[in-house]
Amino acid sequence: MTILLTNDDGIYAPGLAALYRELKRLGEVTVVAPESEQSAVGHSISLITPLRVKEVSLNGGVEGWAVSGTPADCVKIALAELLPEPPTLVVSGINLGPNVGINVLYSGTVSAATEAAILGVKGVAFSLNSYDQNADFAAAARLAADPLERLRGWSRWTNGVCLNVNLPDLPREKVNGVRVTRQDTGPLVEHFERREDPRRHVYYWLAEINERPELDPDTDYGALAQGYVSITPIQHDLTDYRSLNDLQALQWG
Amino acid sequence: MTILLTNDDGIYAPGLAALYRELKRLGEVTVVAPESEQSAVGHSISLITPLRVKEVSLNGGVEGWAVSGTPADCVKIALAELLPEPPTLVVSGINLGPNVGINVLYSGTVSAATEAAILGVKGVAFSLNSYDQNADFAAAARLAADPLERLRGWSRWTNGVCLNVNLPDLPREKVNGVRVTRQDTGPLVEHFERREDPRRHVYYWLAEINERPELDPDTDYGALAQGYVSITPIQHDLTDYRSLNDLQALQWG
Repeated sequence: MTILLTNDDGIYAPGLAALYRELKRLGEVTVVAPESEQSAVGHSISLITPLRVKEVSLNGGVEGWAVSGTPADCVKIALAELLPEPPTLVVSGINLGPNVGINVLYSGTVSAATEAAILGVKGVAFSLNSYDQNADFAAAARLAADPLERLRGWSRWTNGVCLNVNLPDLPREKVNGVRVTRQDTGPLVEHFERREDPRRHVYYWLAEINERPELDPDTDYGALAQGYVSITPIQHDLTDYRSLNDLQALQWG
Repeated sequence: MTILLTNDDGIYAPGLAALYRELKRLGEVTVVAPESEQSAVGHSISLITPLRVKEVSLNGGVEGWAVSGTPADCVKIALAELLPEPPTLVVSGINLGPNVGINVLYSGTVSAATEAAILGVKGVAFSLNSYDQNADFAAAARLAADPLERLRGWSRWTNGVCLNVNLPDLPREKVNGVRVTRQDTGPLVEHFERREDPRRHVYYWLAEINERPELDPDTDYGALAQGYVSITPIQHDLTDYRSLNDLQALQWG
């Protein structure tokens, strides 16, 4: 099995290194990741700027390519230019911070897995339910390995579907299990902090308050909050099929 | 009616100015748009950098706010900080270049309309099927006004649904009509051009070849190719519901 590993926290992020160590038990791993942090880039790609690719040595001697772009750029250029043939699997993560609910839309981590699906390759994204820079990514990577092993037997993987996996930040014995979920669609609670710079100019910083009183346990958000590993199948046809007839009935003439 | 107008080509783009002139017949228009071109930023938002907001005069005396961020940032900060109350409608465009098929995922133009839907406001994105910098945006804006008028009566708008409208680059009498479509999901044909800079360092530039022999007329891509205005309802729940049972059956233990 050949595995392409990427992320959105950048090629030197500890979440990527921890996942690399687990994945190399499963096959041959190639790292192609952004040279700098790309959080919340969503499914963006570089069109108005070109991409630079730099070979790098990672700590522990891992070789990889650092790309001056987004996670989706990394998957595109890896498949088009850097890898001799398409990998068996594209893995993205482990992201520092969960990617559940509406945040899936903003997630560079998930977009790498989606890009894999677009290109006909199995893709999976892993995110950890912690914002702590010193989070235990080694434990998280071990937690990721189990469902990955089981998913390998899933026949419908590809066909335009990828997987968004969120991991609780808990020791293994405290994890309640695995739940297959849908994406939560509840509203975000967020606001902008208004600040002044040293020259007294105003700037704004988006601050999210991820607190909701009630969570549906069948959603990614709800499962993670209850200490489950959440696995959500993700596809990239954004059409709202429920509206098609309704809209057609408007008599366009 | 109050209208928030944004785009991803930047606040000084001719497509925005042309749309502004049409929209002001319908209501009070406020422009909040990126200060620079943001093409293919997808649904990205600024988390690791703050936002600056600058009041600007546009040619013709239009006042607006230029934001140092993405189209989704513009919608967020307009609703949270800049507008006294939520607008009736968020309009994005007119984009130079179509946003059909897989490209919808990469589109900053569409993400602004999606962001509106997330925030509970009616959103619509307009894109023109031309890459010509001298495209006739005035004609395109007139073409956009008709379906917009009809859509205003659509009761299901909001409820998490926004509209992705693509306009043919044709004089009005050559346009075949309006078609309600689904997003095309066919593969992109693209490659990276490998170039050398003046210092002989290699860089890569993504080049897309949007040519497909057969197009389904019920898709955004197909309708546009046949000279129709294409209207696609878009939603932001990425769950692949067809896979849920299948995945649950994997026996997670």
